[in-house]
Amino acid sequence: MTELPQGAAIGILGGGQLGRMLSVAASRLGYRCHIYEPGAAPAGDVALTVTTAPYEDEAALRAFAASVDVITYEFENVPTSALDLLESLKPIRPNRRALAISQDRISEKRFLNDLGLQTAPWAAVNSEVDLRAAADSLGLPAILKTTRLGYDGKGQVKLDDAAEIPAAWASMNNAASVLEGFVAFDREVSVIAARGLDGSVACFDPGENIHRDGILRTTTVPARLSPAQRADAVLVAARILNALDYVGVMGVELFVTAKGLLVNEIAPRVHNSGHWTQQGCTVDQFEQHIRAVAGLPLGDGNRYADVVMENLIGEDVLRVPELLMARDTAVHLYGKGAPRPGRKMGHANRVVRT
Amino acid sequence: MTELPQGAAIGILGGGQLGRMLSVAASRLGYRCHIYEPGAAPAGDVALTVTTAPYEDEAALRAFAASVDVITYEFENVPTSALDLLESLKPIRPNRRALAISQDRISEKRFLNDLGLQTAPWAAVNSEVDLRAAADSLGLPAILKTTRLGYDGKGQVKLDDAAEIPAAWASMNNAASVLEGFVAFDREVSVIAARGLDGSVACFDPGENIHRDGILRTTTVPARLSPAQRADAVLVAARILNALDYVGVMGVELFVTAKGLLVNEIAPRVHNSGHWTQQGCTVDQFEQHIRAVAGLPLGDGNRYADVVMENLIGEDVLRVPELLMARDTAVHLYGKGAPRPGRKMGHANRVVRT
Repeated sequence: MTELPQGAAIGILGGGQLGRMLSVAASRLGYRCHIYEPGAAPAGDVALTVTTAPYEDEAALRAFAASVDVITYEFENVPTSALDLLESLKPIRPNRRALAISQDRISEKRFLNDLGLQTAPWAAVNSEVDLRAAADSLGLPAILKTTRLGYDGKGQVKLDDAAEIPAAWASMNNAASVLEGFVAFDREVSVIAARGLDGSVACFDPGENIHRDGILRTTTVPARLSPAQRADAVLVAARILNALDYVGVMGVELFVTAKGLLVNEIAPRVHNSGHWTQQGCTVDQFEQHIRAVAGLPLGDGNRYADVVMENLIGEDVLRVPELLMARDTAVHLYGKGAPRPGRKMGHANRVVRT
Repeated sequence: MTELPQGAAIGILGGGQLGRMLSVAASRLGYRCHIYEPGAAPAGDVALTVTTAPYEDEAALRAFAASVDVITYEFENVPTSALDLLESLKPIRPNRRALAISQDRISEKRFLNDLGLQTAPWAAVNSEVDLRAAADSLGLPAILKTTRLGYDGKGQVKLDDAAEIPAAWASMNNAASVLEGFVAFDREVSVIAARGLDGSVACFDPGENIHRDGILRTTTVPARLSPAQRADAVLVAARILNALDYVGVMGVELFVTAKGLLVNEIAPRVHNSGHWTQQGCTVDQFEQHIRAVAGLPLGDGNRYADVVMENLIGEDVLRVPELLMARDTAVHLYGKGAPRPGRKMGHANRVVRT
């Protein structure tokens, strides 16, 4: 296993808050980060270099690759052409297969089902006719989602009644889609799992997630799981990482149901539901990811505190003065400027018990 | 009290590891940092901007001041002329008086004694004759130190015998100096204390320091102090901060003696002996300093873990692979490149108990 030497440069595709916290973690390990981001880059405040260029700019991509020792990413929707070029120049971790699978909901579900893991029942939908057939077979309510580029509740619509089918399909703009059957679940949990370059796996304790309007609001650790469920959750995550020969941190969202754990979604990167690790663990998810990508040994995922992570979305950020006064609460802001509805402005980790 | 708004810029004089960790803390609160550093600047890896220019470059200082909302510093030996110019342009926190006092060992001792605080017995030394008289009056052993620009054991020499006086004085190169009488102390502790723009004071628990060759090696928290000694230590620190109308974090080094606490030295900045707070407290000393400087409420200094902080000096950094494997140890590296003897390369915080 080759370890990245002190002072080496890590390239990060994407310059949002995840890239920002990755760059800070990299600095703790003596590395420097170069951010590549077409738009605004809060990560640039704490990085050595920022390249502001579209993913189609071949010269910018080449210069970026030349300046770094390894490339990672903070979001999964980097265009394939950019990745093809970058991969020919420098190692990309996690690897392309993880990205390709998670970029497409249908590939992801096929991959998971082939591994023997349960998902919500699903059907590919490429027309109104498909949608009608899928609704018949899976039953309603169900959720129609584009197969690509969906996040934070975007590109999806809930179907409660067959009468809504034409409008629902129209709202997809003919994008390849998938209908997901409704799953009665007790709770949603996620496992933040890491796999090192040497194949070792370390998982943080599962957290319990609450969403509102398709956006994560809170993660509470520990999740309410039986010991058997907790062990299952970790095993599911480890199986996914090993199958992908994955290197880095992955977020694995699971539904806890009467019939066991279902995989809702995987994210091949550090994950919002893992922010609690900043206050609950000696090595947080960001450092864990950098350790993996840099070929360093993974840190111990041991949790020393119970934490409630709350996202500060839009005008939630107006509560910051009060949160700064709260004992045992750590505030993390992303430097994004004016709040907009639905925009993640920061998060607060409340340490409940140590 | 005016709070610095989100996205505001904080200027930091000095670009070493303290500036680096201050810049990271500022990012957590949504601020951006501009580093001013004549030499190599590890802080620049995690800052928005770095100005590399001497402290005598008036144009560079003006441009720096124009780009920031408030100015702070990570070390105390910024030349007066630079501070005069900067102060005319933007607020400097902590204020000039704290800097002026701590830049000169004699001013510092006078200030402390005038406050009714004990120091080691001392005498000003400006000649070999002075030194001989001081040695007679204070007794030997004693330590001869330049009044200015000393740190990490530099600019000081121990005197065990009167025969060493000529050589000791010669080694000072005629610099204004001070002879400090030898103090029999049980231990050295330090208090990392903060004072907000609103005058509120918060102290972290005292840590116990071990030095070798004049350089801090370890800080262990909690220090072995009686409850009365702990209370005294915090009161001494608070008295100093209030007397200076101080804003920011200060390191106050104390000797624990049979006759009570003696102040060894004050440092008007975040302090190496406060690095343990990164693993022991929800708000660490770096964030505490930024909160103060930005006019935000101070964080709770409550300690939730026992920590042993160990400096990684020179080739200690070769132990990093092993430290990365150690459960409950957080490694912090400064990105300084090749190790040199006596160079602070990083530190490790071992969480002993939570």
